[in-house]
Amino acid sequence: MSAIRSPLSDGARSVTGEALQGTLIDLIDLSLSAKQLHWNVTGRTFRSVHRQLDEVVDLARRYADATAERAVAIGVNPDGQSSTVARSTHLPGVEVGYIPDEKVIRQTTEVLAGVVTRMRTRMDATEKADPVTQNLIIEIVHDLEEQHWMFQAMV
Amino acid sequence: MSAIRSPLSDGARSVTGEALQGTLIDLIDLSLSAKQLHWNVTGRTFRSVHRQLDEVVDLARRYADATAERAVAIGVNPDGQSSTVARSTHLPGVEVGYIPDEKVIRQTTEVLAGVVTRMRTRMDATEKADPVTQNLIIEIVHDLEEQHWMFQAMV
Amino acid sequence: MSAIRSPLSDGARSVTGEALQGTLIDLIDLSLSAKQLHWNVTGRTFRSVHRQLDEVVDLARRYADATAERAVAIGVNPDGQSSTVARSTHLPGVEVGYIPDEKVIRQTTEVLAGVVTRMRTRMDATEKADPVTQNLIIEIVHDLEEQHWMFQAMV
Amino acid sequence: MSAIRSPLSDGARSVTGEALQGTLIDLIDLSLSAKQLHWNVTGRTFRSVHRQLDEVVDLARRYADATAERAVAIGVNPDGQSSTVARSTHLPGVEVGYIPDEKVIRQTTEVLAGVVTRMRTRMDATEKADPVTQNLIIEIVHDLEEQHWMFQAMV
Amino acid sequence: MSAIRSPLSDGARSVTGEALQGTLIDLIDLSLSAKQLHWNVTGRTFRSVHRQLDEVVDLARRYADATAERAVAIGVNPDGQSSTVARSTHLPGVEVGYIPDEKVIRQTTEVLAGVVTRMRTRMDATEKADPVTQNLIIEIVHDLEEQHWMFQAMV
Amino acid sequence: MSAIRSPLSDGARSVTGEALQGTLIDLIDLSLSAKQLHWNVTGRTFRSVHRQLDEVVDLARRYADATAERAVAIGVNPDGQSSTVARSTHLPGVEVGYIPDEKVIRQTTEVLAGVVTRMRTRMDATEKADPVTQNLIIEIVHDLEEQHWMFQAMV
Amino acid sequence: MSAIRSPLSDGARSVTGEALQGTLIDLIDLSLSAKQLHWNVTGRTFRSVHRQLDEVVDLARRYADATAERAVAIGVNPDGQSSTVARSTHLPGVEVGYIPDEKVIRQTTEVLAGVVTRMRTRMDATEKADPVTQNLIIEIVHDLEEQHWMFQAMV
Amino acid sequence: MSAIRSPLSDGARSVTGEALQGTLIDLIDLSLSAKQLHWNVTGRTFRSVHRQLDEVVDLARRYADATAERAVAIGVNPDGQSSTVARSTHLPGVEVGYIPDEKVIRQTTEVLAGVVTRMRTRMDATEKADPVTQNLIIEIVHDLEEQHWMFQAMV
Amino acid sequence: MSAIRSPLSDGARSVTGEALQGTLIDLIDLSLSAKQLHWNVTGRTFRSVHRQLDEVVDLARRYADATAERAVAIGVNPDGQSSTVARSTHLPGVEVGYIPDEKVIRQTTEVLAGVVTRMRTRMDATEKADPVTQNLIIEIVHDLEEQHWMFQAMV
Amino acid sequence: MSAIRSPLSDGARSVTGEALQGTLIDLIDLSLSAKQLHWNVTGRTFRSVHRQLDEVVDLARRYADATAERAVAIGVNPDGQSSTVARSTHLPGVEVGYIPDEKVIRQTTEVLAGVVTRMRTRMDATEKADPVTQNLIIEIVHDLEEQHWMFQAMV
Amino acid sequence: MSAIRSPLSDGARSVTGEALQGTLIDLIDLSLSAKQLHWNVTGRTFRSVHRQLDEVVDLARRYADATAERAVAIGVNPDGQSSTVARSTHLPGVEVGYIPDEKVIRQTTEVLAGVVTRMRTRMDATEKADPVTQNLIIEIVHDLEEQHWMFQAMV
Amino acid sequence: MSAIRSPLSDGARSVTGEALQGTLIDLIDLSLSAKQLHWNVTGRTFRSVHRQLDEVVDLARRYADATAERAVAIGVNPDGQSSTVARSTHLPGVEVGYIPDEKVIRQTTEVLAGVVTRMRTRMDATEKADPVTQNLIIEIVHDLEEQHWMFQAMV
Repeated sequence: MSAIRSPLSDGARSVTGEALQGTLIDLIDLSLSAKQLHWNVTGRTFRSVHRQLDEVVDLARRYADATAERAVAIGVNPDGQSSTVARSTHLPGVEVGYIPDEKVIRQTTEVLAGVVTRMRTRMDATEKADPVTQNLIIEIVHDLEEQHWMFQAMV
Repeated sequence: MSAIRSPLSDGARSVTGEALQGTLIDLIDLSLSAKQLHWNVTGRTFRSVHRQLDEVVDLARRYADATAERAVAIGVNPDGQSSTVARSTHLPGVEVGYIPDEKVIRQTTEVLAGVVTRMRTRMDATEKADPVTQNLIIEIVHDLEEQHWMFQAMV
Repeated sequence: MSAIRSPLSDGARSVTGEALQGTLIDLIDLSLSAKQLHWNVTGRTFRSVHRQLDEVVDLARRYADATAERAVAIGVNPDGQSSTVARSTHLPGVEVGYIPDEKVIRQTTEVLAGVVTRMRTRMDATEKADPVTQNLIIEIVHDLEEQHWMFQAMV
Repeated sequence: MSAIRSPLSDGARSVTGEALQGTLIDLIDLSLSAKQLHWNVTGRTFRSVHRQLDEVVDLARRYADATAERAVAIGVNPDGQSSTVARSTHLPGVEVGYIPDEKVIRQTTEVLAGVVTRMRTRMDATEKADPVTQNLIIEIVHDLEEQHWMFQAMV
Repeated sequence: MSAIRSPLSDGARSVTGEALQGTLIDLIDLSLSAKQLHWNVTGRTFRSVHRQLDEVVDLARRYADATAERAVAIGVNPDGQSSTVARSTHLPGVEVGYIPDEKVIRQTTEVLAGVVTRMRTRMDATEKADPVTQNLIIEIVHDLEEQHWMFQAMV
Repeated sequence: MSAIRSPLSDGARSVTGEALQGTLIDLIDLSLSAKQLHWNVTGRTFRSVHRQLDEVVDLARRYADATAERAVAIGVNPDGQSSTVARSTHLPGVEVGYIPDEKVIRQTTEVLAGVVTRMRTRMDATEKADPVTQNLIIEIVHDLEEQHWMFQAMV
Repeated sequence: MSAIRSPLSDGARSVTGEALQGTLIDLIDLSLSAKQLHWNVTGRTFRSVHRQLDEVVDLARRYADATAERAVAIGVNPDGQSSTVARSTHLPGVEVGYIPDEKVIRQTTEVLAGVVTRMRTRMDATEKADPVTQNLIIEIVHDLEEQHWMFQAMV
Repeated sequence: MSAIRSPLSDGARSVTGEALQGTLIDLIDLSLSAKQLHWNVTGRTFRSVHRQLDEVVDLARRYADATAERAVAIGVNPDGQSSTVARSTHLPGVEVGYIPDEKVIRQTTEVLAGVVTRMRTRMDATEKADPVTQNLIIEIVHDLEEQHWMFQAMV
Repeated sequence: MSAIRSPLSDGARSVTGEALQGTLIDLIDLSLSAKQLHWNVTGRTFRSVHRQLDEVVDLARRYADATAERAVAIGVNPDGQSSTVARSTHLPGVEVGYIPDEKVIRQTTEVLAGVVTRMRTRMDATEKADPVTQNLIIEIVHDLEEQHWMFQAMV
Repeated sequence: MSAIRSPLSDGARSVTGEALQGTLIDLIDLSLSAKQLHWNVTGRTFRSVHRQLDEVVDLARRYADATAERAVAIGVNPDGQSSTVARSTHLPGVEVGYIPDEKVIRQTTEVLAGVVTRMRTRMDATEKADPVTQNLIIEIVHDLEEQHWMFQAMV
Repeated sequence: MSAIRSPLSDGARSVTGEALQGTLIDLIDLSLSAKQLHWNVTGRTFRSVHRQLDEVVDLARRYADATAERAVAIGVNPDGQSSTVARSTHLPGVEVGYIPDEKVIRQTTEVLAGVVTRMRTRMDATEKADPVTQNLIIEIVHDLEEQHWMFQAMV
Repeated sequence: MSAIRSPLSDGARSVTGEALQGTLIDLIDLSLSAKQLHWNVTGRTFRSVHRQLDEVVDLARRYADATAERAVAIGVNPDGQSSTVARSTHLPGVEVGYIPDEKVIRQTTEVLAGVVTRMRTRMDATEKADPVTQNLIIEIVHDLEEQHWMFQAMV
């Protein structure tokens, strides 16, 4: 089978595809990291943090799927395999073992800040290339910044 | 904070923890691989395969969470980060780009067969060590073998 | 198409397949018998018995499906056709015509006791052969024994 | 207990009762046959056929219940036991073992065509005898002919 | 405002309107009688009878509304006021005070038999005059005869 | 069977029973009158009035049931048959035929005002006799006065 | 692929197919006209008319689908394309621009009256040819006449 | 009544209104074409294509309504009547009769590609004229391109 | 931490607290007794009694929670531990073993009568002390008296 | 239009109206204050306090609506505009900017205590004037005191 | 605690914060004004206007919350207290007492037009400063303009 | 009535019955203790602990019912009365009065650890005696150990 015909020009598709692939890696690794902390967190606010992290997982998974489907819709093959994620992620690893809640909160705040920064660059990059993709990225930024505030408020 | 007190003896905890960690890696990577195929599959039965793969993703995610929470409940820290998954997974990688449906079906059948084989070993290993964990593994095997049949029936 | 590859050895598959096929016949005929009584029962406790029988039908149908799908998942073809059921069932036939509620209750109690006895033999037979199948049978026994108690309590 | 008083004259009840009993046998055996195919089908369109067959099972079960309850409401005892079904059914048996999807589709189309033919005869027979029963049969024919079209469209 | 234009001829409207008004009175009084028994029934099967009667109330209310709306749709004003119902009903009154369950069952069986007889006459009367109305009446007869069987089965 | 033992003294039961029987008649007849108007109303605000009246029917039916069950709970047999309602109601009859919306609104407002006045007398009468019944009456008054306002606002 | 085998004789299929195709055109154009009015209506009863029209749209769409699927089920290809609808519809066009509510109500009443008249002719035409199709048409007439009454009541 | 006051300047309203009217025609005709194919498709993947087309119908209807309501909200009267659609549509007609699934897939892919191209032009045209309308169009493009990918993947 | 500040005076709080603690004991023990009977009842009306008892359990649990939360809201610590319940309950014990349905009905009627009597004393006691608490007690009495009637009706 | 006729005497209406208007102001301002804190709270228990405050908002809004509708039902016009609320509220203002969770908890506890005190005065004032209104106020007090306890428990 | 770190530059945050605070005041006061009219409206279209206003309240509340949470997510403290709203709102006050429906409709149309005008200025102001916030404002404008049309259509 | 016939031998029934009775006592007392703490807990994490405890109550109640019904299903009469629970429980009492959250967490952790230990002994004891009962116990252990971890994580 030949490739999916893209509704975008080659240049626009290239810019947009890169933004989407970057987004996909960020969101998949965010979902894995947040689950890791969800399982290993301890401390008096365990329940609050445990649940807040699952909200992050939910949004990361939902938007990862939307991102990858947007990529293939414009004729770009997304790659979200574990080896690709591990090789190209910008997220710092999480130490193995129990992690106290205050450390989890600080770390998640940092991770979210980093993802937001990269996402805002992608938001700018896609403005001309593909407003449809930019619109998806704007929604993702909106929800990530909301989570970023909520974790920061707990610091 | 000190470790969670385990309801198991040290030996049993070690055996059980190993089985759970292996299960976690298998299930997380299965969820990532199945999503990868879900996005890139093409062919006349696209819709059927696309949807069947999402059922695999759903069960892999649900059991991965149950597996990790069982681990921490017996005092073992699960590790499901992308780097750990990439390093220790037994699943073969998926080629990048569009993949025809028949190839997707064959590949998923193989992957599921591999996971089932490893899970059955873990099922035996935990029988004495922790029947509670074994019971969880039995449920996982049941659902994986069901998926294995369904993909095999499509070959 | 060749047969579905079984996750079981030939011996285990044979033992397990026999247990599943026997379960399937018992459950399908239980669902037909219970419906027959559901329609033809009369008496002052008509409504209670009419409804209780539909709970039996529901569980019999649900587990019949799970049983047959388990069979094919281990590479054994289930046979639940009316001719097969009629030929191989162990359930006694129900007389045609109206049946008073007290007789319905006694008869259903007997039928359930018979099915439970056969299911417990299958539970033992599959313990070594396939713990995954045994686990399914254990669940079926649990629910059938609950119904058995409830009908017996009405005698 | 004496028989349920029928709202119909003896003649009308006899004609109507016969139509309902015939309908009951057709529908119960249709539900068993469709389940048999649902479990043993294989092929590239496995998922579509597997699911479409379950829609047939659902409607066959729902209308079998309505049919039997209509029979007893007019003072006729329905008989839907496995032995009665096996003895009096007009449906051809299904071969044991895996069945390729295209064969399943052709066979189900034939079976549905046969049931529809018999149901249309019953529809005519009950027009004068009992319009209430005829109305139920009309609904059944409607849904069976819809399924007949859908399977035929897949041939 | 002038009258609603009827889709029926004057003759057909007159016949149909009479059938609908008669149906309305029967159904409203059935709902009031069944509630009366629902409140005052006593006896060992209190709960079953109490609940079965509420099913009668539900269907009587639902069909009374459909009947009256059908009447106005063909340009006939329905009259379902208490004075009209009391004056023109054919249902026997219910004695005041507690009523033992077996008496309730016999009485409800009689009442339902009476309503069914009148409804079947209306079913015949509307066959030519208005098949749309006849179709509604057929549905009502179907459900009333089902209740009639169920109460009779409890006698 | 002897009467239900009342939790109230004879005097209190007599006062309370009278209030409840009066309430029952008011509410049943309100439900019948509101339905009558619901069917026969015409005019530019047909849809609004048609729907608002069904809210009145719903609350009248719900509270009629609660009222009658309260009566029998204190050992008083409620009587809500059509003949009793027709004989003892205080609601004015509704003229037969189409009724313009503005007239429906005025008439419903009057009817509700009348019921509210009688209910407030019953509210005072039961204060000492049975606070539990008074509490039910207070709820009914609350909802009736809300409807009274809404219809008055439409005048 | 050859044509779908029809359960009807050629003559009956021809009569029935014509009735169904006519129904399809009426219902599709009714749904488009009602939406047009739904968007452009103005006036004090805007909200009521706007919403009532959406109920017409819903039933027109639902029955259009049932009608077309009935056609194909009897081996007749339905044609519901915009060009076919525009060419063969009997509905009058709607003027472009805002339309006052009273005009909308009068126009919808006329349109519904026209559709009902044509549908009643089809109801008669299919009585002998195919009672199953007639039954569907009876249901459609029932719901259209209900809407016809409601709009007429608002005039 | 005078026209709805627009929140836009005359120039912006004219540009935006034209884009919305064009969108409306595309979406209504897409919904009619997709239904036409939904009914007449045949072939081994009948079920998948039949259902996928209904997703297209759903989104086309939902966005057609949003589009028309946006038009009237900015003071422009939408026109979605069958005659207007037939006269101004850019969609190719669908041949009458059964259509094999592979042809349906190719044709739907082409139709969706055409609509997407026109929608992207409207997306650019409304960027300055009315960002609110552009935002709606972006959402529509997103969902249409997703469907375009899915049909293309099936080719 | 100091005590919760009460919105009541010391005297009112003391009276109200005593009423609430007494209510709590009655309701918890009622829930345990009703469950005990729910499990051990036998007889022809097993199903009806088994289910009716679960309604008692549900209301006892729901009101026990509301009662205890009301106590702490007025600054009184509720005590609902098993030792406290066993020591201070007024409910008679239930004999161990199977209990025939008629005995269960008589016993539950007695138990409910006893609880109602004590609750009515508490209703009077809290009238001046705290109308908010009295209102809660009135609701509890209402529902308990309804259950009392239903069990008495079954005697 | 003249005023809504009140079911209360002038004196009773005046007393009751004053109580309701005071309640309305308290509840609207409570909903605004709680939202203000909901947005600006920070601290380790951010999530718990953020969510608990939304429960306060929900109940304040729900009861504000019930209060205002009760006022108009007795012929008194409620005034809940921002200027009226700002001018007549008894709630202290909230400082602008981030507020630490412990301060939020203390402040909310104080605010709730103040509202409860005023509501209890209104509860007494309406006892004679209008038991229906008093009943509504009792419910409000119940829920406010529950929230008061929960915030106090967090201090 | 120090301030939430903003993902925006100081200049962008200042511009965006001002737009969000202005939006918040508009929306809170819109929700209060619409409720005020919801309670005090009278006239023949009372029900329609009463309900349409509650849709305005719902959207105003939902977007007020989203607006304030967006503000705090970018490090700006929202202020939505009653005193702030009263002091800075641009909405005209509503006269106290009953207000006829036609006046309510005109007034709401004016209020919505005013809010829309201010929101469109904010939409432009945030385009460069923060596309994420602009996107939220675009959604709000969309829904407000829809309401504006609906009220205007009722004039 | 004679005893329920057990599907187990006398020895197996005795062992299993003892395990189930012990489980029942543990679970009922766990539900009462957890409710006691749910009501009396105070402290900054009040909300989290209050809610987590209700999850414990829910699972304890659900499994207590399943346990008792399993007992009677094997012919053993469960005894869950308050006096029996108080006399035979192994849970320590809870001190009366407010209890700070950290103490609640420690105490619940201890209680859960104790129950888990006893349940694991019962799990071993029933392995041979009755695998069906063992399976139920395994599920209970799984959920209790999950709660045990969560409370321990909060210490």
